Amino acid sequence: MHITECIVSAPGKAILHGEHAVVHGKVALAVSLNLRTFLRLLPNCTGKVCINLPNIHTFLSWDVTSLQSLLPDQADDLKNAKELDMDLVPKLRSFIGVADGITDTSTMAVLAFLYIYTSVFAESRELPGLTVSVWSELPTGAGLGSSWSGTYSQVERGGDAADKHMGLSGEKIIHGNPSGVDNAVSTWGGILRYHAGKITPLSRVPMLRILLTNTKVPRSTKVLVAGVKDKINKFPAVMNPVLESIDAVSCTCQQTLSEMATEPTPEHYDVLEELIDINQHHLNVIGVGHPSLDRLCQATLGLGLHSKLTGAGGGGCGITLLRPDTSSSVIQNAIQEVKDCGYDCWETSIGAPGVQHHSPSSMKEEVLQLLNSL
Amino acid sequence: MHITECIVSAPGKAILHGEHAVVHGKVALAVSLNLRTFLRLLPNCTGKVCINLPNIHTFLSWDVTSLQSLLPDQADDLKNAKELDMDLVPKLRSFIGVADGITDTSTMAVLAFLYIYTSVFAESRELPGLTVSVWSELPTGAGLGSSWSGTYSQVERGGDAADKHMGLSGEKIIHGNPSGVDNAVSTWGGILRYHAGKITPLSRVPMLRILLTNTKVPRSTKVLVAGVKDKINKFPAVMNPVLESIDAVSCTCQQTLSEMATEPTPEHYDVLEELIDINQHHLNVIGVGHPSLDRLCQATLGLGLHSKLTGAGGGGCGITLLRPDTSSSVIQNAIQEVKDCGYDCWETSIGAPGVQHHSPSSMKEEVLQLLNSL
Repeated sequence: MHITECIVSAPGKAILHGEHAVVHGKVALAVSLNLRTFLRLLPNCTGKVCINLPNIHTFLSWDVTSLQSLLPDQADDLKNAKELDMDLVPKLRSFIGVADGITDTSTMAVLAFLYIYTSVFAESRELPGLTVSVWSELPTGAGLGSSWSGTYSQVERGGDAADKHMGLSGEKIIHGNPSGVDNAVSTWGGILRYHAGKITPLSRVPMLRILLTNTKVPRSTKVLVAGVKDKINKFPAVMNPVLESIDAVSCTCQQTLSEMATEPTPEHYDVLEELIDINQHHLNVIGVGHPSLDRLCQATLGLGLHSKLTGAGGGGCGITLLRPDTSSSVIQNAIQEVKDCGYDCWETSIGAPGVQHHSPSSMKEEVLQLLNSL
Repeated sequence: MHITECIVSAPGKAILHGEHAVVHGKVALAVSLNLRTFLRLLPNCTGKVCINLPNIHTFLSWDVTSLQSLLPDQADDLKNAKELDMDLVPKLRSFIGVADGITDTSTMAVLAFLYIYTSVFAESRELPGLTVSVWSELPTGAGLGSSWSGTYSQVERGGDAADKHMGLSGEKIIHGNPSGVDNAVSTWGGILRYHAGKITPLSRVPMLRILLTNTKVPRSTKVLVAGVKDKINKFPAVMNPVLESIDAVSCTCQQTLSEMATEPTPEHYDVLEELIDINQHHLNVIGVGHPSLDRLCQATLGLGLHSKLTGAGGGGCGITLLRPDTSSSVIQNAIQEVKDCGYDCWETSIGAPGVQHHSPSSMKEEVLQLLNSL
């Protein structure tokens, strides 16, 4: 198997509407986030496989020959790579010297990488020397993950976006039992409707400018999800209609986005803003708000911009919709106000393309320099 | 008819839950507010009827004989005082020299008073000289009105609380077509459930300590009600479940209050607080919130207290629940913080008694002094 240098990127993902409600069978809209994760694959002649993950301060390398010994003897065993080879994972754990139960980001990323690396090249019976560098514009651990494993698999398969199962395999290693939505958004980009296990890409969608804010308030998704369930059990007659209303917010938003694809008007943006405000209130009602998110909403509303939490809530990240005519001075003021709250803030967009190949000449200079420096 | 001095008071009223939703057929809970309106009736020998309304800077008097001429000749015409004598209103308007269509608070209060005064004493064919002074602890024009006319009618009928129709007559003059809830709350006190035109007093209810805040932000109830209707028409699938949820908030609150009557627990207060927060979010969703109310909620939440708007919203008044164990230092801090926002704030209670007779010796000294100074 011949390996050539290549660079690919995958977008992050966010939830536009329907977080938490989706757990209770309601519609959610997942969107790609144009803060991208870049992956460069570089063949080398050192007989080593090297992995550089600067965002999580992880720089590791191993002799290819030592990894080779982990592969099963029979090539047959490797054929059906669509199913996760659960024997390989403990072997890899012991290879990198990490005990079962250790699940920090760095460990899981390395495991996912090695799993895919060995699986992809196992058929050729010869693991090549190569250096993989991954750098992401996304905040780490904020739940916005480009499926890194998705990005790995795309590059190693030559970026064939139709072949998503490897990304999902990596994700299964990291997350246990993912819905597949994250991987689908990172791969395909755009906006996806998710409902009762069914993923439907919206056929034509506008790209929307947003601010992404990371309040940096840590939270546990598991605890938040359990809290919502408790509230529903405590006040079913109060809470179930709220979930219904959130469902209608997602559906109304989907409808509005479809209309906007052909001819976006200021009124469409008014509706998007209203839906953002409504859902943010609903998310507070179901108990996943946080004072840090209230501050974000207030700070941006002071400049006429509308925000909501995205994802688990209870801190974490928020998105702020920008209109086509929002001036750059308003945007700069908003970013400054949000940063003055102590948060990180980026100007980006949602509905951006999925996995993309990049030629070094067309890359953003800063990203290329960063990858070259590793 | 012999007239003796008497002093009565009636509580104000507030909406605990269900404002706006009640317009769309949902349950509302109306509560008496222990900021009271005091009325003193004093017979005099000057041959004049005098009215002192210091809250609205209205001090007027007329010769009894000139009023006498407005009365119908036939005593029969006066018998059925339960029906509003619509001939009398224009006569009274022309008597006090105020054109049709002038409906300021002072004019309407005076009209209501004169209407009741002439109607009550008409049967005796002799209008007595008397001085009526009304002073209220309530903020004027904040929609919390003790039905003043209700208070009039109680005192003039000797405080027979069962005879409420005169109060309602006065209210019809002031408000056009009232639901009767305001008058019922002012008369009976306590907490009333209002649903689809039916008023049901809650049989045993706790008295709850609250802060009442007047943001002093002016708003039009009519415009707010129309705005809610527009939102429902624009996003029916989103808004109708919110009204349902508000309905469930009112019903859950009613249930909780009933349980509290026998044995209130801290958990009951937790539920009341949660319901307040939920409804405040819902009121924002249906578009009747206001930044001034957000500030109230935030300021009090900083001290662990939960607030919501009461009534029309869009500014106006808010209530903050106090727990039995809320310390007086927390209460004083809360009042100070709220006042620092530029609002007026009172410590009072809801679920207080309805119309009460007072003997001068049992009256609050400050109120008595105030009435005596008029």
